[in-house]
Amino acid sequence: MEISLADIALKTGGELRGDSQKLISNAAPFELAKPKDITFAGSRKFIKKLNLTKAGAVFIPESGLSEDVLAASQNLIIVDHPQIAFARILNTFYPPSKPTSGVSPTAAIGENFTNGKDVSIGHCVVIGNDVKIGSRVCLHPHVVIEDQVVIGDNTEIFPHVTIHRYSKIGANVIIQSGSVIGSDGFGYASDGNKYIKIPHTGIVQIDDDVEIGACNTIDRATFGKTWIQQGVKTDNLVHIAHNVTVGANTVSAAQVGVSGSTTIGRNVILAGQVGISEHLTIGDGAILGPQAGIAQAVDKGQVVSGSPEMPHRLWLRVQRIIPRLPLIRKKLSAIEKKVNKIEKKLGLSPD
Amino acid sequence: MEISLADIALKTGGELRGDSQKLISNAAPFELAKPKDITFAGSRKFIKKLNLTKAGAVFIPESGLSEDVLAASQNLIIVDHPQIAFARILNTFYPPSKPTSGVSPTAAIGENFTNGKDVSIGHCVVIGNDVKIGSRVCLHPHVVIEDQVVIGDNTEIFPHVTIHRYSKIGANVIIQSGSVIGSDGFGYASDGNKYIKIPHTGIVQIDDDVEIGACNTIDRATFGKTWIQQGVKTDNLVHIAHNVTVGANTVSAAQVGVSGSTTIGRNVILAGQVGISEHLTIGDGAILGPQAGIAQAVDKGQVVSGSPEMPHRLWLRVQRIIPRLPLIRKKLSAIEKKVNKIEKKLGLSPD
Amino acid sequence: MEISLADIALKTGGELRGDSQKLISNAAPFELAKPKDITFAGSRKFIKKLNLTKAGAVFIPESGLSEDVLAASQNLIIVDHPQIAFARILNTFYPPSKPTSGVSPTAAIGENFTNGKDVSIGHCVVIGNDVKIGSRVCLHPHVVIEDQVVIGDNTEIFPHVTIHRYSKIGANVIIQSGSVIGSDGFGYASDGNKYIKIPHTGIVQIDDDVEIGACNTIDRATFGKTWIQQGVKTDNLVHIAHNVTVGANTVSAAQVGVSGSTTIGRNVILAGQVGISEHLTIGDGAILGPQAGIAQAVDKGQVVSGSPEMPHRLWLRVQRIIPRLPLIRKKLSAIEKKVNKIEKKLGLSPD
Repeated sequence: MEISLADIALKTGGELRGDSQKLISNAAPFELAKPKDITFAGSRKFIKKLNLTKAGAVFIPESGLSEDVLAASQNLIIVDHPQIAFARILNTFYPPSKPTSGVSPTAAIGENFTNGKDVSIGHCVVIGNDVKIGSRVCLHPHVVIEDQVVIGDNTEIFPHVTIHRYSKIGANVIIQSGSVIGSDGFGYASDGNKYIKIPHTGIVQIDDDVEIGACNTIDRATFGKTWIQQGVKTDNLVHIAHNVTVGANTVSAAQVGVSGSTTIGRNVILAGQVGISEHLTIGDGAILGPQAGIAQAVDKGQVVSGSPEMPHRLWLRVQRIIPRLPLIRKKLSAIEKKVNKIEKKLGLSPD
Repeated sequence: MEISLADIALKTGGELRGDSQKLISNAAPFELAKPKDITFAGSRKFIKKLNLTKAGAVFIPESGLSEDVLAASQNLIIVDHPQIAFARILNTFYPPSKPTSGVSPTAAIGENFTNGKDVSIGHCVVIGNDVKIGSRVCLHPHVVIEDQVVIGDNTEIFPHVTIHRYSKIGANVIIQSGSVIGSDGFGYASDGNKYIKIPHTGIVQIDDDVEIGACNTIDRATFGKTWIQQGVKTDNLVHIAHNVTVGANTVSAAQVGVSGSTTIGRNVILAGQVGISEHLTIGDGAILGPQAGIAQAVDKGQVVSGSPEMPHRLWLRVQRIIPRLPLIRKKLSAIEKKVNKIEKKLGLSPD
Repeated sequence: MEISLADIALKTGGELRGDSQKLISNAAPFELAKPKDITFAGSRKFIKKLNLTKAGAVFIPESGLSEDVLAASQNLIIVDHPQIAFARILNTFYPPSKPTSGVSPTAAIGENFTNGKDVSIGHCVVIGNDVKIGSRVCLHPHVVIEDQVVIGDNTEIFPHVTIHRYSKIGANVIIQSGSVIGSDGFGYASDGNKYIKIPHTGIVQIDDDVEIGACNTIDRATFGKTWIQQGVKTDNLVHIAHNVTVGANTVSAAQVGVSGSTTIGRNVILAGQVGISEHLTIGDGAILGPQAGIAQAVDKGQVVSGSPEMPHRLWLRVQRIIPRLPLIRKKLSAIEKKVNKIEKKLGLSPD
């Protein structure tokens, strides 16, 4: 498949400077791109070395245009977000390979099933009663959907995912293999020795445009809902406990754990292996550093690191000092000796 | 469904103070409860604001009865453990929705299968040879049970769980979706460069009343058994290595990892993301704080935090000091300068 | 089954000192071995107490032969690597219980499937189009293999594993239950508010002799490949992101997370719950301690611990000082007071 630069500019809403008839056959990273590939230069780092890529064309931001750049006579497409334009064209060359629509004869579908058009239901898929799925939904082989689940249009669910009863999954959602949506929350009443299970009567609600990574576990609420809002993206092996809310467009790296009833704001960034205690509030736009252990609320826009967490800038200073603690301790001992000597000389008795 | 307060008192072994004919139709949390709901006030915090709930009745402990409480003319049921009574009534209103008993025609069952009465075996369940399951066992769709596994009465196993050969699962056990019981332990013999797999000839034994969360991995023993004792509860994504023992009524929050041959006592609490090294002993009733890294044995009843762990009270003090390290260092430099000045003035030579 | 010591010496390339006709019926650990068992004494610790084992024979290294040992008239087999010899004999007594070869009628196999001889394809296995598997490959029940996957000879894949399209799996590979190979990497382009998915056009390549634990997640590359080289062993719940390379014979304990585009050398040891940031290089033979948070490159052969990491020896000193911070702070205050007193006495004004 080949596309002209004119067409690529059209598809990405960009402004072309260069040969509109030039044909492009692939999208590739800056260093690997060949003459028939398009690439992108999103940051100053790449814009400065634009002459080093062999790509046939480059997406760049308007801010990247300089006299040098324009003089180089490369094919450029000027766009607001070069990486997004690149992702779009990559999608054109590598369209998601969804299975063809149809229902496998090995799927087991319960009573009162409602579905939109062009759905794909793979081998051994099990669907409970009163389930409703939208158009173009793709359930890959070995997906299990329990009773009363609702799934929106275009949603794709990969193998071995379990969606427990009453879950509400939005449109354009992707759930990677092995994830569990709506398992019972970890809630018990204790008599001081043993633990009695508290029934979990709530649900999980996942809004539109969410992507859940592989082997995530998202528990149903005790009452009400565990809520993953629009545009959230989670990496693999993320744990989200009962009654948590994750705000719109928040991203979570792998192996993050969020304890029960915590509310995470919008556009938050959770780095890998972060742990968050229960009943906390994380403000919009906060950034939580790798392996941070969050024991207190985090304000809007705050950047924190460490376990327990502290402001990131403070943490940067602290973690430079920690390896010097042996030196600090040594210095303290030396000073102590000197002070004792001085006291002696001055005839001062120790306190 | 509606139940009278008299019946609720009877079911929970409580003492009713109020309208025995009052009908209750649901159980709900303190803040959300409506006039036909029952709720609970387990701690002083809630007992103090008893007048703020709209619930039609409240479980409270005997210790919560004061003149004010009694004067308020609310319907009260006095019980030993309000939250347990609440969980029981919640169970009455929301009975676990087990599938009806029966064996799916799509299940594949091996030779010499023995089962109690009223078992439920879902779609695509695969059962090996010489497997024995008790009465009312529920194997949800897509459960895989290998050869020689034994499962006790009333146990419920959710979708996509694998139970490897020879595992012994007790009665009243719950295993949430995606968990793996009895995978090979991580044991290799090294020739200094590459690793040779050590066969794992042992088993996993899970005793009665255990609940295993979603996507747990519990490895079989090298020899003997990996042993999860009665009443243990684990949250999601917990890893338990070969030859570990987890004592009765111990609870583990999510993403905890326990290394090989470690023995954890009874009634231990493991907070989220704790890691425990191999061949350690954790005493009965110990509490291990969030993200703790346990490198040494922990005594009975000890509370520890940090990585590596230290007594929790010490850790509380330490973690208040750590963010002040830049100040401490600055202060140390200032004192050093002063001492040098003093030495100079006194004609003392530096050591 | 019984084997003579002569045969065992032959099988393990060892030199027998003792009764060549003695029959052995099992292999067991040092403390548990009975008179018809063989065991091993790999380290000085066990060699010193050789008289305490009831085993009928013991594998020991040549370096373990002393006058005392030889005088004890125990049956000994002298080998280079006692634990490896032990593992081999254990394998003889407990051969891996692979299912018999054959294809289940409930398996669903796509077009253009190629397979070697004696393959075993279990119940409900789903295989896409253009898949090629070698001889004696064992796909346990509920394995899902997507299109264009290639799998080498003797590889065994346990239940509920998903192998996504285009993955290349070598020979003699073991993948434990529930793992996901080739899920999409966690890559998005941001417009400053929401995230646009970047298609992942690369693959996962797993070389010969690798063992992947249960519930691992190994993401496909954005471009090129995520590469697990020969002889790598991972424990359970390990996350390996897009474009990571893990060098030959590296071992990873449980719950380790490796971020995107990081390159790990050969013979590296990753302890439990380690987290590694993106785009880093970890040198050959490095050792990363439990819960270490790796934020910088680690040189060849370096041993590091802590989060963020530091040289392990330094960390040992640092972590002994950290619990003493309250004392250090107290001491600093005491010295400060003394210095102020001295300054006063000397008529020095504070800086």
